[in-house]
Amino acid sequence: MIQNCYSVIIAGGKGTRFWPLSRSRRPKHLLKILSPKSLLVETAERAFSLGGRNQTLVVTVAEQLGALRRELRALPARNFLAEPQGKNTAPCIGLAALEVVRRNPDALMIVLPADHWVADVKAFQRTLRAACDLAERHDQLITVGIRPDYPETGYGYIVKGKALGAKSGIAAFHAKRFTEKPAIAKARRLMRQGSLWNSGIFVWKAATLLELLARYQPAIARGLDAIGKAVTGKSLNNLKLRSVIAKEYREMPSISIDYAVLEPAGSEGRVLTLEADFGWSDVGSWAAVHRMMHKDSEGNAGNGRWLGLGAKNCLVHAPDRLVVLLGLENAVVVDTPDALLVGDLNRSQEVRELVEELKKKGYGAYTVR
Amino acid sequence: MIQNCYSVIIAGGKGTRFWPLSRSRRPKHLLKILSPKSLLVETAERAFSLGGRNQTLVVTVAEQLGALRRELRALPARNFLAEPQGKNTAPCIGLAALEVVRRNPDALMIVLPADHWVADVKAFQRTLRAACDLAERHDQLITVGIRPDYPETGYGYIVKGKALGAKSGIAAFHAKRFTEKPAIAKARRLMRQGSLWNSGIFVWKAATLLELLARYQPAIARGLDAIGKAVTGKSLNNLKLRSVIAKEYREMPSISIDYAVLEPAGSEGRVLTLEADFGWSDVGSWAAVHRMMHKDSEGNAGNGRWLGLGAKNCLVHAPDRLVVLLGLENAVVVDTPDALLVGDLNRSQEVRELVEELKKKGYGAYTVR
Repeated sequence: MIQNCYSVIIAGGKGTRFWPLSRSRRPKHLLKILSPKSLLVETAERAFSLGGRNQTLVVTVAEQLGALRRELRALPARNFLAEPQGKNTAPCIGLAALEVVRRNPDALMIVLPADHWVADVKAFQRTLRAACDLAERHDQLITVGIRPDYPETGYGYIVKGKALGAKSGIAAFHAKRFTEKPAIAKARRLMRQGSLWNSGIFVWKAATLLELLARYQPAIARGLDAIGKAVTGKSLNNLKLRSVIAKEYREMPSISIDYAVLEPAGSEGRVLTLEADFGWSDVGSWAAVHRMMHKDSEGNAGNGRWLGLGAKNCLVHAPDRLVVLLGLENAVVVDTPDALLVGDLNRSQEVRELVEELKKKGYGAYTVR
Repeated sequence: MIQNCYSVIIAGGKGTRFWPLSRSRRPKHLLKILSPKSLLVETAERAFSLGGRNQTLVVTVAEQLGALRRELRALPARNFLAEPQGKNTAPCIGLAALEVVRRNPDALMIVLPADHWVADVKAFQRTLRAACDLAERHDQLITVGIRPDYPETGYGYIVKGKALGAKSGIAAFHAKRFTEKPAIAKARRLMRQGSLWNSGIFVWKAATLLELLARYQPAIARGLDAIGKAVTGKSLNNLKLRSVIAKEYREMPSISIDYAVLEPAGSEGRVLTLEADFGWSDVGSWAAVHRMMHKDSEGNAGNGRWLGLGAKNCLVHAPDRLVVLLGLENAVVVDTPDALLVGDLNRSQEVRELVEELKKKGYGAYTVR
């Protein structure tokens, strides 16, 4: 257990990319894709192993609060924070930092997206311990970078600067620059240069984050300040406070923590990065799921009862019925009680647009629950 | 209505080629694939329009009798004949001929497979009327040949001989030779030469067929003779007679009417063929179904609710759920309550082997009902 440290799980995403399994009322972090547990529960269990259960917070949007509390009964109710609306990650992380500081002004804060996959939990724990150690000693913003397997164009990259040395085999660097979703040629170049995927996992002192928000994002800091002054009870999650939060949120800009804080802080030399490798995936599409799954000798993977005859590189998610694949390649089959997706696995990033198409074609009911 | 004529529907097939829709207890002729009615009901309604309902017989195997009577309540019980076991088409057609002759010694008999598709019923009726006329005038065996659309290797072909002239636009020829399932090069040659697909639809005097069976297939004729002598009631379908039929069937060879009678009779100049075109298909595979269905501009066809996004030449059969196809080509999706087939449409003839594979892999229960 890491002393003096809070884990903050960010669980606000919608997850249209996993239709028909995901629906607007069944977001990605509630899905059971890569294990019998939801991604949220997997993330929470990893968090509990870092700072402990009582020092784990979940931040979500109000409309998901009920479903998340039901999913994560192991977590005390007062450890759930609800945003009135999604405003990207900067306000969300700011709100969590406010609560962490309120509980312990000196605490570290680990930011964990709720919907990522970690194959090697021990390596993950070693990395996060090293990150906390670094944040404690240097009072910098620590980002966790992942050694790329392939030149993914859907991720952000961290360009490494000067090395700080290694601890427990985990190398630390100054973060020189952040690059959002590059074109393929640039992604290849970044990979060749040793740049890292930005995992969205961060460690810092909560108070330091609030200071930097005040410096780079005064509009967010003002809102958080007003919320902080209105806090009277023991938790941010009470009715009176909710209306204050709602009012302040309406004014806040919608901006990611990367743009809001990491980039300006990075250019002032206040961001470090750890080069990690713990079988990480942001589980961004069915193709990403296929990449993480155990596959047979033909490259097929599946949940449920399925049989491939001459099928190659296919993914089947069908908990309730027998699926037979006959002579297909690179196909994804996702079976749910009311809807079925059969698609080209290489086009699974188009599922998001597909959901919009369903709404247009009068099948909107199939996108809700 | 055609005078003096019985239609005999041959309904004994198993239909493993349409798994998961077809199961051993749900044979192909009971499936509702190309219309909301089963192939059997479609066939029966066409038969009723030829010789009338009371002059329509259905021959099936004992284990299917109950299901077929439930499916075809419009037909009098005494018009169902049950074979104790399948022995290919010669004994089956012989048994039906025996019953037709018993009811009317001078009657014509139209043989209709229960599981074929006819798109143009009026053209079908014109063809069968011409066939009956020909059989009545010439006392020959009349086969219905179909002008091929493509060089199918799964069908038998009829090589045409001398022309007899045309009636109502339907040309008649002597049937020179029968060729079973040819290799692709030979199929192309046959098609170029103007040979016809053997539809399995035949017309002849029932008494003539029995005469020819006696001449070419004495073992079958002996069995039919014994059965004929044992008939006491008004129908072949009574309990006492069943044990006689069972006994005689055990001794009969399993042989098709083509080999048993048509080939030898053809070589003696006793077979004619009509060159017909009424949108016929033997519905032999999901690919054949796709060929007969109405398709959208991308070549996709479906039953039920489905949506294709970048999909081409796909077939969806999904009466109960929404199916979305994303960027697939030449795929077949068949959705049933307990099992789902997703396959390459061009490999749909392999579904039969797939059913064997399911049995081997312990999924035999999914092939029964």
